Amino acid sequence: MTETAETFVQTAPNPHKVPAGGGNGRVAPLVEVDEPRRATAAEQARTILANETVGTLATLQSDGSPWASTIQYGLLDDGSPVILVSTLALHGRNIKADPRASIAVAGPVPKGHDAGDSGRVSLAGRFEEPTGAVREAAEAAFFKAVPSSEGYISWDDFDLYVMRVEQVRWVGGFGRMASAKPHEFAAAEIDPVAPQALYAVEHMNDDHADALVAMARAFTGFTDATEATALRADRYGMDLGVVTPRGKVSTRVEFLEPINEATGLRSATVELTKKAREILGDPASSGH
Amino acid sequence: MTETAETFVQTAPNPHKVPAGGGNGRVAPLVEVDEPRRATAAEQARTILANETVGTLATLQSDGSPWASTIQYGLLDDGSPVILVSTLALHGRNIKADPRASIAVAGPVPKGHDAGDSGRVSLAGRFEEPTGAVREAAEAAFFKAVPSSEGYISWDDFDLYVMRVEQVRWVGGFGRMASAKPHEFAAAEIDPVAPQALYAVEHMNDDHADALVAMARAFTGFTDATEATALRADRYGMDLGVVTPRGKVSTRVEFLEPINEATGLRSATVELTKKAREILGDPASSGH
Repeated sequence: MTETAETFVQTAPNPHKVPAGGGNGRVAPLVEVDEPRRATAAEQARTILANETVGTLATLQSDGSPWASTIQYGLLDDGSPVILVSTLALHGRNIKADPRASIAVAGPVPKGHDAGDSGRVSLAGRFEEPTGAVREAAEAAFFKAVPSSEGYISWDDFDLYVMRVEQVRWVGGFGRMASAKPHEFAAAEIDPVAPQALYAVEHMNDDHADALVAMARAFTGFTDATEATALRADRYGMDLGVVTPRGKVSTRVEFLEPINEATGLRSATVELTKKAREILGDPASSGH
Repeated sequence: MTETAETFVQTAPNPHKVPAGGGNGRVAPLVEVDEPRRATAAEQARTILANETVGTLATLQSDGSPWASTIQYGLLDDGSPVILVSTLALHGRNIKADPRASIAVAGPVPKGHDAGDSGRVSLAGRFEEPTGAVREAAEAAFFKAVPSSEGYISWDDFDLYVMRVEQVRWVGGFGRMASAKPHEFAAAEIDPVAPQALYAVEHMNDDHADALVAMARAFTGFTDATEATALRADRYGMDLGVVTPRGKVSTRVEFLEPINEATGLRSATVELTKKAREILGDPASSGH
C-alpha cells in the first residue's frame, strides 16, 4: 500500500478517544518555523466540487426519513449546486414536498490510497427553483456539467433546482477537516492546480525524492529529515510525509508564492527546490 | 462520445413526459422472440454494492433536515451494510439521535459514458448496533472492506452499525430502474462476472463486432441488424445497441445458460456466437 498521511504521525493532536495504550506519539520539529499556508475549508470544498459532476443527494421522504440518491450536478459561479431531477423519481418528489437537502461529493482517490484519507465535501441547504437570469445561469451550469441533459432538460417532469447553501463541511482525510461559512464558500477560489495535483505528487515521489528531502530540511523544521514523500499538492504548497531518525511525521512546505495557473506546479516546485538548496548551502544536499 | 443505451431507442415505452414534437420513435423486432432473462433489481443492487466500498450516507440532523456524507462500508452476507462512524463527526451524532438512514452507492462509470446512464443503488432503513455473533460478522465485514479500520475500530468514539434494510431502489441508467423488497434483496445473488463485465464489453466491441451482429440477427428478432454494439454484460446475457435499416434500437441477448464463475464471460459469448451462426445457417454470416 502507498504511504498515506495516516502512516505518518499528525503534528496536530489526535481528536479521537484513543484507548489507553494506543494512540500516536509525536515527533516535533527541531527548528521553529512559520505555519505554512493551507487552503481554507471553503477553498477545499469549492475545489472538490468544481472537479466532479457526480455526487449524492440526501432528501426527506414523506415520513421524514432520509433518502440518498446518486445525482449529477452543475455549479453556479458562487459554488451553488444545480440539479435536474424528475418527479418520476423519489428524490424529485421529495424536494417538491420539502426543499431541505444535502449533497455529498467525494474527490478522486489516488490508486492504492485509503478512501478514508481522501477529500470529500458535504453541503446542506434548501433547493429553490431559479427564475430569470438565475434560471439561465443554472441551465448553462447544468449543461456544462452534463451535456446529455440537453436531451431532457425541457421534459415536463424535470425540475431544475439551485441549492441555497447553508452548511459546508470539508473532510480532507484523517485528521484534516473543517467547516466553512456560506459566505466564505461563495467567495472562495477554486484551486487551479487540482487537476494536475495527483500527477505532480507521483512525479515528485518517483523522480525527485532528493528535492523533497531538501524542502523538508530547509522549510519544515525537521532538519534531520532523511526521507520525504509528497502526500498532496495544492496551489499553496505540498503536504509531506517525512522520516527522521526520531520517527515519521507529516508536515507541510509552502511554495514561494501561491500558484495562479493550472500548469504552475512544475515551476513552483523547481523554485522551491532551488531555494531549499540555497538555504542548505549545498546544491548537492539531497539526503542520498 | 461512446454510444450508450440512450443513443438507441428503448424498446420499453419512455415513462417521461416528453414535450410534443420530441420523444423517441420505435423500431420493432421483425420476428417475435422470448423475453431474455435479466438480473432482478435485487441482484443488480447486491452486485453494485458488492463491488464498491465507498458510498454516501444520508442521516437526519437535529432539526430533521438531511445530511449527506461520504462513508466506507462493508456488507454482511445478506447485503446489510455495515458502517463505522465517529461521534466526533456529525453523521455519527445524527445516527445516535435518530437511526433512520439511507445509503447510495454508484457503480463504475465506463470511460466516455454518461454517469446518468450508469448503475447505482439506494438503500434506506434503520441502523442497529450489532451484538454477539452479528457484531463479530459486522466487524469482519468492515475489516474486509476497509483494512485500515483495524487501526481505529476499537477507539471509544467509533460506533459500528448494521443497517436493517427497508427500501431498495436500483437505477441501471436511462429507462432501466426498479425497486426490490427487502427479502428479495437479502436473498439475491451477486453477479460473479460484474468485475469483468466492462472489459468484456470493450473487447467484444473492439474485436468481435461480427459476432455481435450474428447474435442480434439470430436471437433478438432484429433479423435485419447490420451493426451491433455491446452495451452491458452480466451473468445472464448482454444488452446490445443494434442498427437496422429501419433505425437504431437497444435490445438484449441471453446466454445459453447463466454464468456461475467470475471468468465465465468468455466461454458464454463464444458458445452464443457459435449457436447464432448455426441458426443463421452460415458460419461466415457476419454482416461484414
